[in-house]
Amino acid sequence: MARWEPDSQGRLFQAALALYAERGFENTTVAEIAARAGLTERTFFRHFADKREVLFSGGGALEELLVSAVEAAPATASPIDAITTALEATGPMFEERRASSRQRQQVIDANTELRERELIKLASLASALADALRRRGIADPAATLTAEAGVAVFRVAFARWVSESDSRGLPEHIRESLSELQTVTAGR
Amino acid sequence: MARWEPDSQGRLFQAALALYAERGFENTTVAEIAARAGLTERTFFRHFADKREVLFSGGGALEELLVSAVEAAPATASPIDAITTALEATGPMFEERRASSRQRQQVIDANTELRERELIKLASLASALADALRRRGIADPAATLTAEAGVAVFRVAFARWVSESDSRGLPEHIRESLSELQTVTAGR
Repeated sequence: MARWEPDSQGRLFQAALALYAERGFENTTVAEIAARAGLTERTFFRHFADKREVLFSGGGALEELLVSAVEAAPATASPIDAITTALEATGPMFEERRASSRQRQQVIDANTELRERELIKLASLASALADALRRRGIADPAATLTAEAGVAVFRVAFARWVSESDSRGLPEHIRESLSELQTVTAGR
Repeated sequence: MARWEPDSQGRLFQAALALYAERGFENTTVAEIAARAGLTERTFFRHFADKREVLFSGGGALEELLVSAVEAAPATASPIDAITTALEATGPMFEERRASSRQRQQVIDANTELRERELIKLASLASALADALRRRGIADPAATLTAEAGVAVFRVAFARWVSESDSRGLPEHIRESLSELQTVTAGR
């Protein structure tokens, strides 16, 4: 039997998501995820520390993409433009995962522990973005505030994008949320 | 022996803070906290679920104060004004606790689990503030974005207030942070 496993990580992710949606995160075991994916538990643990991390394994790639995009923004870009351009750059990545993003969000929203883990991951993302801004020479508190504002915009935009059935893309939701944040912070 | 214990909760809080600062949060036991406060473990558990909750027990009062202040803001106040006026109203409460607020922050900053708990508490505060805005008739996403912006402003202001040795009060730091947030979100 061939040992080569085409995209076993992706198969495990899809199998886990399907099982969490069917029977709930709490009631799903690693053995069941591996079986659904046609893989062994040992393979599961080569990719993920536990069944919770299956849902958060994409965070590293997202953070990397965002940080690189902030670093690559033109020197003349204002901090908020550097951040929102980076956030908009995630559009294509998420667009091809709209169904699984929606399913993942529903699983997370249904479980307190997962919601808390998501908050912590988003805070760590804000912190990485603030670091990236500091490397562009932005001082604090501007770096921290811009990164926090960016993550708030992203959360609102993402929640609307996964919940709405219209065809608008994530970047459009991001621009709209930013504009709303600008309005509310200006006090109008 | 009299059973009446004047402010045993406050004594336990001060004892816990002192011990966490001296030997670290991880290396302190409930028995030691109770002994330092001159109280029994049983009394400790009448006030707190565990040694971690000692640090977060004030969160309920803070949330209550902020939510009432948002509800009491004049009907003509914009959402961000309602939120920042509420945040500024915490000034007197924190002013008389500057030393313990600083000590608490140092303990939290030194421990990943405590930092995560703090993030979760702040997220829950943002959610309560967004609810209070919705009760004022503010629709989403304005309610969510304003509450998130307010909590970001508060975090930055609070961090500066506890770390700086100058005499400026928390309300002044809050106004300054808000002004900085307005500048960065406007992209200037």
